[in-house]
Amino acid sequence: MSLWQIIQRLLPFVRPYRKLVVSTLLLTLVGSLAAQVNPFVLRYTVDTVQGLLNQGLGLAQGWHMLVWVSALLLGKELINTGITFGQKYYGEKIRISVSGALAEAAVTKILGYELGFFTESGNQTGKLQTRIDRGVESLMKLVQNFFIDILPLFANALVALGVMFYANKWVGLVALSILPVYFWLSYRQADRLNGTRRALRALREEKNHGLISIIDSIVVIKSFVREAYEGEKQLAVQDKLEAAQLTTRKTNFRYDGLKSFFEQIGVVAIIVLTAYLVLAGQMSIGAIMFHVLLFNNVSAPIRQLHRIYDEMNEALTYAEGFFAILDADDQTERPGPLRPAHLHGTFELRHVNFTYPSGTAALH
Amino acid sequence: MSLWQIIQRLLPFVRPYRKLVVSTLLLTLVGSLAAQVNPFVLRYTVDTVQGLLNQGLGLAQGWHMLVWVSALLLGKELINTGITFGQKYYGEKIRISVSGALAEAAVTKILGYELGFFTESGNQTGKLQTRIDRGVESLMKLVQNFFIDILPLFANALVALGVMFYANKWVGLVALSILPVYFWLSYRQADRLNGTRRALRALREEKNHGLISIIDSIVVIKSFVREAYEGEKQLAVQDKLEAAQLTTRKTNFRYDGLKSFFEQIGVVAIIVLTAYLVLAGQMSIGAIMFHVLLFNNVSAPIRQLHRIYDEMNEALTYAEGFFAILDADDQTERPGPLRPAHLHGTFELRHVNFTYPSGTAALH
Repeated sequence: MSLWQIIQRLLPFVRPYRKLVVSTLLLTLVGSLAAQVNPFVLRYTVDTVQGLLNQGLGLAQGWHMLVWVSALLLGKELINTGITFGQKYYGEKIRISVSGALAEAAVTKILGYELGFFTESGNQTGKLQTRIDRGVESLMKLVQNFFIDILPLFANALVALGVMFYANKWVGLVALSILPVYFWLSYRQADRLNGTRRALRALREEKNHGLISIIDSIVVIKSFVREAYEGEKQLAVQDKLEAAQLTTRKTNFRYDGLKSFFEQIGVVAIIVLTAYLVLAGQMSIGAIMFHVLLFNNVSAPIRQLHRIYDEMNEALTYAEGFFAILDADDQTERPGPLRPAHLHGTFELRHVNFTYPSGTAALH
Repeated sequence: MSLWQIIQRLLPFVRPYRKLVVSTLLLTLVGSLAAQVNPFVLRYTVDTVQGLLNQGLGLAQGWHMLVWVSALLLGKELINTGITFGQKYYGEKIRISVSGALAEAAVTKILGYELGFFTESGNQTGKLQTRIDRGVESLMKLVQNFFIDILPLFANALVALGVMFYANKWVGLVALSILPVYFWLSYRQADRLNGTRRALRALREEKNHGLISIIDSIVVIKSFVREAYEGEKQLAVQDKLEAAQLTTRKTNFRYDGLKSFFEQIGVVAIIVLTAYLVLAGQMSIGAIMFHVLLFNNVSAPIRQLHRIYDEMNEALTYAEGFFAILDADDQTERPGPLRPAHLHGTFELRHVNFTYPSGTAALH
């Protein structure tokens, strides 16, 4: 199942909440515009302060501007807090409602299936339950990533990138050129970690199972004086788990380091380019801070990309099994032909009696 | 058990890795110094650029400075990437090794206990295993929070706060005065969410259990045509879970919003105060950016405080049960008195035979 197919399958479940979706998207858009206010205000502050200093003016003339800047920033922050809360709350509401609808659909569907469905291999209790539970959970993560985590950050990044291009096309190009490196690193990281999560889970289950079987078999272990042997066996599993954990984390740390290194290269390039443009007389001194803050908005979402890749892969793995449960229409119980218009009669049981072996007549 | 007692109990397990601990702490210190390089370099850049402009000089004289700044920032980033990797890797190694040592101690201890220990109520297989597993996991989180997540951020914040005080005591005071509000909000947030995690887990287990019992009893449900009734029962549990999830997340979003609002008030106060000081002629124009970036370093760790509170509470809950297992010394098997120096004899079995009912003589 491709991501596109999953989205198409999710659409009917999201549709009843389309008003919520539209509100969330609108709030996201407004929020991404509000996130760019700080850079603009800081540029204005720095430039105005420098302008006053250049004219030999001081505090007496600056008061007015300081009050304005404070009011603007605090007002924006008040609005922004409301927007962020609404955006996250609606996003969460969509996520929880959709996951509820998915679980409901699965329960209603399987209740309508024939008994044969439940005796099929692969539909045993544990497996069926896990498939429904995991399916709903991973699809829910996909919705959460989209509406709560990633969409606002990406909207923010796009607007910031647009502002940078508008301010100066070279600065915009430098910011844009860092992105492919970032995408590639995130992709490689998710690729390297692909499957390790499942391998770690298997090892963790083995460790837990080992502990349970030690406690369960303690009488046998003690009768045969095998404490040392069993202890060593358990510690070997433990060591394997530790080694696997350390390797996974090492890969993660390495890629995270590389990513923040390239992000910093972007920051350095933007500082130097802006300083150059200021010296060349094409920009005011406030532009240095302006561009650094904007680039911060651009790079924020990409830091989280590998997590998204990882969770998307998990959703792809589990979605297929989950939707197969919803799609097993051939398993639905088929009612017989239409009931006849006139069906009359009497249902009688005669000559039924039961006497216990002790002689007590229970039914007579 | 108080946090202090837990730390004292953990010390013997951390001691074998003291070299690793010292290296991690050293790297953390160096890293927190390196984090302050960017603000200094940016202040230098802005001030130098403005100085050149004031003297009517341009690019020809600025080249030298731009090359210097690029080299310095990239060199620092190269070193910083190494430091961060080393710091995280060593921290993770400590965490994994300590958790391994804890699990090892628990397994070795229980293997040496008398059989009576295992028949005590509260020491049944599932409970004992959960207590060991949860205890190790939550103590491990405590170590991780300390060495990987929080210590570097706090070191960073302290150094940044020191630099702010050194630059100007009023700016330092403003930055410092935001912190108590933050601490109080984080504390309230953790307090409000206390227990909800466990309540959510209980509801989630109930939901899963409901699904399992539907699948298990499908024959009975279908025989008595109770599909609709069972479906509704499961959906009611589902709705309860959804409502609980939404309430929890709402509380979280509200406190996160408040915290970022107060953080932004701090940013605004620092911008306005610095602009005032620049206008009053006490600082150069580069100080605005310098202080904004430093305050960013100060507020970073506090954003994560409520998570730490939450996980610390969990550690406090589980640590007691875990250490009780390690401490049950009265349960250790006591060997009898010393073996006699001379013990001789013959072990003989005589007149043992066995014949199957079929007549086959197996042993004779």
